[in-house]
Amino acid sequence: MEFKIKISIIGAGNLATQLGLALHNEGYLISQVYSRSQKNASILSKKLKAEAISDIKKLSSDSTIYIIAVKDDAIESVAKQLKLKDKIVIHTSGSVSMEVLQKSSKNYGAFYPLQTFSKEKQSNFKTIPICIEANNNNTSTTLQYFAKSISSNVKRVNSEQRKKIHLAAVFACNFSNHMYAIAEQLLAKDKLSLDLLKPLIEETANKIKENKPSKVQTGPAIRKDKNTMDAHLKMLSKEKDLKKMYELISKSIGISPLRSK
Amino acid sequence: MEFKIKISIIGAGNLATQLGLALHNEGYLISQVYSRSQKNASILSKKLKAEAISDIKKLSSDSTIYIIAVKDDAIESVAKQLKLKDKIVIHTSGSVSMEVLQKSSKNYGAFYPLQTFSKEKQSNFKTIPICIEANNNNTSTTLQYFAKSISSNVKRVNSEQRKKIHLAAVFACNFSNHMYAIAEQLLAKDKLSLDLLKPLIEETANKIKENKPSKVQTGPAIRKDKNTMDAHLKMLSKEKDLKKMYELISKSIGISPLRSK
Repeated sequence: MEFKIKISIIGAGNLATQLGLALHNEGYLISQVYSRSQKNASILSKKLKAEAISDIKKLSSDSTIYIIAVKDDAIESVAKQLKLKDKIVIHTSGSVSMEVLQKSSKNYGAFYPLQTFSKEKQSNFKTIPICIEANNNNTSTTLQYFAKSISSNVKRVNSEQRKKIHLAAVFACNFSNHMYAIAEQLLAKDKLSLDLLKPLIEETANKIKENKPSKVQTGPAIRKDKNTMDAHLKMLSKEKDLKKMYELISKSIGISPLRSK
Repeated sequence: MEFKIKISIIGAGNLATQLGLALHNEGYLISQVYSRSQKNASILSKKLKAEAISDIKKLSSDSTIYIIAVKDDAIESVAKQLKLKDKIVIHTSGSVSMEVLQKSSKNYGAFYPLQTFSKEKQSNFKTIPICIEANNNNTSTTLQYFAKSISSNVKRVNSEQRKKIHLAAVFACNFSNHMYAIAEQLLAKDKLSLDLLKPLIEETANKIKENKPSKVQTGPAIRKDKNTMDAHLKMLSKEKDLKKMYELISKSIGISPLRSK
């Protein structure tokens, strides 16, 4: 990069950390890191050679892009405290409307990286899909360049689509993880370890890299193996919620609209 | 191996194919492959340098181990046609009782490899957990040696445990795949591709290699983010079954007994 674009990061959590590192490594100048906790602001700002602030009033007004990477339910209250005229202000949430930023600046948008982050494990942003959305064309163009500078998988979406993607991610990731957790719990009762299922879990996730999940469904529900399903429901008879879940998901597997095509 | 142990394989599907190949490569002599379809029997027997038969009466009685690797609901009817005295007869199912084999031989058991198989993609049996169960100690010992000769992850289980493992596998694998399929379906309606979520799906499956799934749960349900959950339920209002599923799984995430420990 010929000149250094200045970025301010509001938040010091998992996503703020990994996005900050990706931008820093790409040559952006991270000007400030804000966190309510001075300690957290300091830890991240040290990594990014930025200034740490814990008083939002100390946010300088000379950055080009302000990234709000805080918890979903804190975005609006942070945004209310920003008066950044025509600077670009973005949040990183899948589900929060970008209009919560409209009083922060004339130019705003969403910048939603589709990945789960942790502070310690470095993320490879190049392969992470980033969904962007902006309130006007200029901002959209800038955000596209900005996103493409760190990821090779950038997609312009509208609010509807972003929220739909977030909902789909809840099923594909949060809910599939809970299916692993239920397996863990069922096995633990018999002092069995989830390790037994790890090769199978890995293969299940690998399979869909090359195949539509609706086409590679296996198990008693898709084979309509009523004997096995009845035996499973009997085993779950004391766990009403799991039993209901087993019935509902099995029914849904049987009638999936994509599969019948 | 000093001498070659003779094996007969009943079935020519995905599991029969991969197990047959693993045994053949390990130096076992595959004597015969039976399938109702002479064509399928021939295809597999060619790979295993075995004789193909499609008439079960032609099954020779001089193998040491007979492996029934057919669909769950066909095991019993196949077993009824076998009179193998004291030869070891096993099936490969997670859910079928081994007692369906008691009239086939005095020595019988289950040999349940925890993996999903396809005919074309070669499986690495060394890393596949195999659960074994037998009707007497001698058979159990033989089956342990037999399983350990192709896998480094062999576990003796009882019938209860095997069925519990199978139920857990339905949640961890069949149901998590269906969560991917629902995501696929939700995205398809907005002409969006599941590709967007693939890095996230991969990371979700990877995370549990090192962490208990109950400890790494993310998403609106575990944060008790009611606003986001309400918005999601509204988006699902026309899809009653998915809405019910969303509510049930979210509730289950909130009250998971393992997490509260």
